[in-house]
Amino acid sequence: MQGSPPRGMRDFYPDEMRVQNWLFSRWRASAMRYGFEEYNSAVVEHEELFVLKSGEEIVSQLFNFVDKGGRRVTLRPEMTPTFARMIAARGGALPKPVKWFSVAQCFRYERMSRGRKREHYQWNLDVVGVPEVTAEAELLSAALDALGGMGLTAEDVVVRISHRGLMGAVLEGLGVPEEIRTGVLGVIDKRGKEAEESLRRRMETLGVSRDAVHALFALLDEKEIGAFARLLREQGLSTESVEDLETLFGYLEACGIGDYCEFSPSIVRGLPYYTGIVFECFDREGKFRALFGGGRYDNLFDLFGAGSLPSAGLGFGDVVIQELLREKQLLPALSRRIDFFLIPYSQMERARAFRTAERLRKGGFHTDLVLGARKLKGALREGARLRAERVVLLLPEELEQGLFVLRDLESGKEERVPEGAFLEDPGRFLRASGSGPSGSAG
Amino acid sequence: MQGSPPRGMRDFYPDEMRVQNWLFSRWRASAMRYGFEEYNSAVVEHEELFVLKSGEEIVSQLFNFVDKGGRRVTLRPEMTPTFARMIAARGGALPKPVKWFSVAQCFRYERMSRGRKREHYQWNLDVVGVPEVTAEAELLSAALDALGGMGLTAEDVVVRISHRGLMGAVLEGLGVPEEIRTGVLGVIDKRGKEAEESLRRRMETLGVSRDAVHALFALLDEKEIGAFARLLREQGLSTESVEDLETLFGYLEACGIGDYCEFSPSIVRGLPYYTGIVFECFDREGKFRALFGGGRYDNLFDLFGAGSLPSAGLGFGDVVIQELLREKQLLPALSRRIDFFLIPYSQMERARAFRTAERLRKGGFHTDLVLGARKLKGALREGARLRAERVVLLLPEELEQGLFVLRDLESGKEERVPEGAFLEDPGRFLRASGSGPSGSAG
Repeated sequence: MQGSPPRGMRDFYPDEMRVQNWLFSRWRASAMRYGFEEYNSAVVEHEELFVLKSGEEIVSQLFNFVDKGGRRVTLRPEMTPTFARMIAARGGALPKPVKWFSVAQCFRYERMSRGRKREHYQWNLDVVGVPEVTAEAELLSAALDALGGMGLTAEDVVVRISHRGLMGAVLEGLGVPEEIRTGVLGVIDKRGKEAEESLRRRMETLGVSRDAVHALFALLDEKEIGAFARLLREQGLSTESVEDLETLFGYLEACGIGDYCEFSPSIVRGLPYYTGIVFECFDREGKFRALFGGGRYDNLFDLFGAGSLPSAGLGFGDVVIQELLREKQLLPALSRRIDFFLIPYSQMERARAFRTAERLRKGGFHTDLVLGARKLKGALREGARLRAERVVLLLPEELEQGLFVLRDLESGKEERVPEGAFLEDPGRFLRASGSGPSGSAG
Repeated sequence: MQGSPPRGMRDFYPDEMRVQNWLFSRWRASAMRYGFEEYNSAVVEHEELFVLKSGEEIVSQLFNFVDKGGRRVTLRPEMTPTFARMIAARGGALPKPVKWFSVAQCFRYERMSRGRKREHYQWNLDVVGVPEVTAEAELLSAALDALGGMGLTAEDVVVRISHRGLMGAVLEGLGVPEEIRTGVLGVIDKRGKEAEESLRRRMETLGVSRDAVHALFALLDEKEIGAFARLLREQGLSTESVEDLETLFGYLEACGIGDYCEFSPSIVRGLPYYTGIVFECFDREGKFRALFGGGRYDNLFDLFGAGSLPSAGLGFGDVVIQELLREKQLLPALSRRIDFFLIPYSQMERARAFRTAERLRKGGFHTDLVLGARKLKGALREGARLRAERVVLLLPEELEQGLFVLRDLESGKEERVPEGAFLEDPGRFLRASGSGPSGSAG
């Protein structure tokens, strides 16, 4: 019997689980301070939800199967279609705007060549019912609040922002036929992941003229929104995308996250449902894949017959952020917390140990006790391994006098304390606390 | 496009998610105070893990499929085999005892006739490496601590406890052949779920004599452990199971949970891997299925080649407990918490609103603001819907004088406060708090 999980799946041993819980708690805390409410769904979803709404790449990577009732289901590859299904089901009964978040496990059946896993958790934030780019500003501030809370500054990470309509207008101006524009955007999305020469060839194969490809690539590195405004105005094309971007950057400045954000016309996002602002967050050194990405999807709800609901959202995975934090040595040292470790001298003192442990635990103290038959030396070693703050020895002679023996494992110092005095205020025997029972660091 | 999730799956809208998070946080808090560490794994597991180790009933209900790589996998139906796989993989490197817990989503493909879902979350607690019944005492105290924390007393719930070896010895004494004993235990396990007459017939069909069936049923309601001790001693059979039970009940008294617990010889548990103490927790009125169940499984790790590791564990689902708490009106009223809701008078004040929101959020206050174009009246309604504690109006004239308008939606009272004075200590403008930013009630 093999000990590893199925290929591409992760086990979370306690050390890894502590990191995971820490990350999730940062996500949740930011989301709640920014006024988002949590939702979730089961991991199993209708297959058609994704066949309809996601890109071809996702469909080919679905973790799908036919259940015993003959239904085509899949482990969800992303959360947005499920989110849209849930919103659409409540329809008009849900007051807008809706600001929801989720920490959702998602699955993709990918080839394992790049060391990528087949499952990850994604923090999803969505704002429904807001046509203004205030929605995007909310999303980005919440996500950057989480990153900032993890110690990542504007020197570590950058959010690259553009607008689907911007590149659309540029393609229009370059005379690229409408029917191949989605394909061209798909090629642009691969920039940085594939060699530029290969991308240029793919565009020509799609039917873009060599001159248009040349002009397009010259624009992809343009950092000035103004240059696009001039270009579009010259050609009599819509400048709405430019205005949206300028308004958004104003809000991002007001939110104090202007330093993190830059205009980057080559950001188009792979998924087909985006309609407006799009963005991706990267480490500045460019060592890792995107930390998070998202944008506006104003037409997604139409597909569910829920009418037009202007919306924007983002997804933030748990894998890349951990890689980056590890590299920057920003992952906190998290250890199990045991306040008191009780050692009954023999089986005779066990009931007493249980009684005492119960009192401490009910008082909110993280408490453990020796459960097996152990010599004192082995028991003390166990206490040391648990990094218990205080060891409480229940020794027969001392107990007869109503005394507990409290031992500090670091200093080896022992003191004899009357049981009553100890149980009245156990917190004062803890080193750092002073204030009382420990939190939920666990 | 349908709005519901796949059959048997649950959506968690924010109201349901708050209840779910509340339940999970109670589980986690109890587990950590009792010295357990959290672990988890992906939902996808090797199919063979369950084919080998679980009962036939589970195998027929597996949510299994063949992945695109031809591997037979399944959504886990329970956590214990995964737990055993993870422990076995680390083997001797893991210091014992291991005390781990998990809050794990599990899937079973069941017929939907009983209104049962195909997915639930289960709180799993396990103690590995402890042959003494101290392990069972730890498990039961932690689980009952969680129940107690939810407001359920010994008058509401009962833990019925027995020992696999007890019924084994009884069957031996009654001359029931060894090869059909597992089958007979399976029939006993159905007690309360199936008519007694039907169970008696099934036992006879298995090959138990009518006299033995009669004697057996007479014993199933025996409440005195002592009666079994005498019976087994008279027949020269092992009384180890009785001694284990008596020791355990002593510890449970010491832990202050004696009132919750009773001896009940008909508890045998359906899963085949249990070897010693077994228990199930029910509501006293008998309206619901078991709240939690578990026991000792000393031989499970042998199957993984990890040698003998005496262990015990329990599983506690999220569905029945919520039904019971709802019926007893013990589910807390949980609502979204918004401390401040900012209303910019027009688009002109939006950047200012974002700047202010950012300050409040960074200060730990749950803050929301108007994102769309709204008239003041609609904005105030939105604030009321969010039950925002305080509304902050950013009005052009007042802002010119550096003033915010703070409004209490309950009383309708307004006060004009200088921006600086407000931002210096926003907490003092909150009704109940006094002490500062809100916690994570979200």
